[in-house]
Amino acid sequence: MLHKITNLTVRDVRFPTSLEQHGSDAMHTDPDYSAAYVVIDTDCGLKGFGLTFTLGKGTEIVVCAVEALAGLVVGKSLQEIVSDFRGFYRLLTSDSQMRWLGPEKGVTHLATAAVLNAVWDLWARAEGKPLWKLLVDMDPKQIVSCIDFRYITDVLTEDEAQKGKQQREDQMLREGYPAYTTSCAWLGYSDQQLKQLCTDALKSGWTKFKVKVGADLEDDIRRCRLIRQMIGANNTLMIDANQRWDVAEAISWVSRLAEFKPLWIEEPTSPDDILGHAAISKFILAYVSLLLMKSYCRLGSVNENLAVLLMAHKFQVPVCPHAGGVGLCELVQHLILFDYVCVSGSLSHRMCEYVDHLHEHFTSPVVIHDAHYMPPKDPGYSCEMLESSVQRHQYPEGDVWKLHINK
Amino acid sequence: MLHKITNLTVRDVRFPTSLEQHGSDAMHTDPDYSAAYVVIDTDCGLKGFGLTFTLGKGTEIVVCAVEALAGLVVGKSLQEIVSDFRGFYRLLTSDSQMRWLGPEKGVTHLATAAVLNAVWDLWARAEGKPLWKLLVDMDPKQIVSCIDFRYITDVLTEDEAQKGKQQREDQMLREGYPAYTTSCAWLGYSDQQLKQLCTDALKSGWTKFKVKVGADLEDDIRRCRLIRQMIGANNTLMIDANQRWDVAEAISWVSRLAEFKPLWIEEPTSPDDILGHAAISKFILAYVSLLLMKSYCRLGSVNENLAVLLMAHKFQVPVCPHAGGVGLCELVQHLILFDYVCVSGSLSHRMCEYVDHLHEHFTSPVVIHDAHYMPPKDPGYSCEMLESSVQRHQYPEGDVWKLHINK
Repeated sequence: MLHKITNLTVRDVRFPTSLEQHGSDAMHTDPDYSAAYVVIDTDCGLKGFGLTFTLGKGTEIVVCAVEALAGLVVGKSLQEIVSDFRGFYRLLTSDSQMRWLGPEKGVTHLATAAVLNAVWDLWARAEGKPLWKLLVDMDPKQIVSCIDFRYITDVLTEDEAQKGKQQREDQMLREGYPAYTTSCAWLGYSDQQLKQLCTDALKSGWTKFKVKVGADLEDDIRRCRLIRQMIGANNTLMIDANQRWDVAEAISWVSRLAEFKPLWIEEPTSPDDILGHAAISKFILAYVSLLLMKSYCRLGSVNENLAVLLMAHKFQVPVCPHAGGVGLCELVQHLILFDYVCVSGSLSHRMCEYVDHLHEHFTSPVVIHDAHYMPPKDPGYSCEMLESSVQRHQYPEGDVWKLHINK
Repeated sequence: MLHKITNLTVRDVRFPTSLEQHGSDAMHTDPDYSAAYVVIDTDCGLKGFGLTFTLGKGTEIVVCAVEALAGLVVGKSLQEIVSDFRGFYRLLTSDSQMRWLGPEKGVTHLATAAVLNAVWDLWARAEGKPLWKLLVDMDPKQIVSCIDFRYITDVLTEDEAQKGKQQREDQMLREGYPAYTTSCAWLGYSDQQLKQLCTDALKSGWTKFKVKVGADLEDDIRRCRLIRQMIGANNTLMIDANQRWDVAEAISWVSRLAEFKPLWIEEPTSPDDILGHAAISKFILAYVSLLLMKSYCRLGSVNENLAVLLMAHKFQVPVCPHAGGVGLCELVQHLILFDYVCVSGSLSHRMCEYVDHLHEHFTSPVVIHDAHYMPPKDPGYSCEMLESSVQRHQYPEGDVWKLHINK
């Protein structure tokens, strides 16, 4: 009963979402929402489940990268890993030969996330708690011991990272964490579809709506006008360009959409262009808010997300995480609950993305009530998929793909 | 004779350099210099050869990524590609599903580089010219048409990118491009080895030496003192920490090494921490120069390197490219020759790294005379390897690896 890890398997699971334009935006016109799906076996029968999100083609590369990391995991016990989680994180991200392929970015970091998600899931299951509760109950010292501080000591040191108060837990269990929806306005949807989805969402209690923009300005104006009319002046609208523009384009394009009063403009340009983002925000701050959009799945699992949450808190920047894809809502809800209960202590300007796809494939799908994420109660990290779903959607041999490939 | 691409193969080629600590530094203690090696076949019998550099473990992930890109290349003709090279670059880097795995970073970008290097090699061979000469003879408009400007219009526009003068070509053919050596002072070498290699290098005419630092301060002080004594006050010493430090550590560590008068400190911290680099350079600018160290192999082949050279020229920042590894010296020499002849027009504060390993495996290895890169004369991009070397070093089935694995 040492929870010794005896095996790690990874599978390429893809959902043909592009057939109906779910998830389409200005840069990703035909995504098939997919995952590299990891299962960890232990000597006591307990399993850990983890995944990293992808868009279809190339998922096999992430699978290959997970296989390359497997040797660093199999043979270790859970106790060994969590008693020096920082060291284990660094082992995965700083292998002397593998590090060159990142570091801590791209395919290898996505693979690291999948593996670590499974380890965190295993840990939470071993403790019989949902992951958010495992984090909430942790000693602050232990939280901090999971973070690799190598490159962030200039903004955050170990001593500084402090836990907030725990009284907010009851509030979350009662009311849940506020969410916004992106399900109404994917770029490839028709106006008719937008209207119908908006109507339905308003009826279900949604008040905050994200719209994909960036492919065609006249289209964007028409679509934003339509949605603003549908939701009225008191609800919230956000826009997302998915990295489509250069700096000048972002400024002029967003100026044209300002009349629709977007709360924020998301991913205006290259995610690596920090100075470009600064330039854009200088010009358009009159129209939009400055928030941290955290792409959960690009970070190295809970460990790196903890570092980001603590740094955001230090600089008093609200965190509004991305979710959606495959299983991201299931994963992200744990971290945002922890953020509220133990770090930020505030809901001001904070909300978590929600997308209404593919939840039916999970054994503990998210529960949304009145546009709020209700805290999960099952042990683990909520990313176990139904084995039947995995088998049907495995690429290319699953039944779903045999069908499409033979069409 | 359309140079239609009929096939693309990629192999995992590794050299067991870690056995002798070649290439060792503070973060990469035991690299096996390796490559994902690409061969393009055409319908006219002409081939193109390209590679991307890796450090051993994980090369199979890059191979997998190259295979995922192959479908975008096979079936196209060279003419089709080069007549819209910007479009082809974007096709490889912005596939709607694959882009998620980067974008333009990590494994997928390394794979893009390998593929594009082979395409550029094919083009240069089709023109019967070494690559640098193909570039030098190109119309400025055509140079610019190879660059994807999506995210760089805020610092460089198409109109602005101008070719310099061409008279420097004769000078390069006569004298070559100045180089510095990193071969003397890998971190894993003994002091005895340092001394011997320094003595030999001085005899061969080397005047500029790079030393790996960052693992242990007392060791660094001893090694830098030793090398400064060996090379004297008039020769040049540079130091390289390979991303080992956080910001405060970098400042204090470099301050302690200032007495050895390093020309520059390379990679003090995370390559993605732009503000951290700014903070470090503010403190240590008293000791060291500010230069652009361009890691050739991380960029998207000639296309992205052209963008970097033009932007560096615009901001008057000297470019001193990395080389070494497997085939990087062979590749980089072409670009730095083009930079001098057509872009920067200056050798001031400029030099190109040289490392004296693995050149024997190439069909047109670099030629160094008196610490200068002599312009290559064979058609192509100089990255064709001897087929016998490839076969012996293929991982894991080549003879060299069978030997090590069975040991």
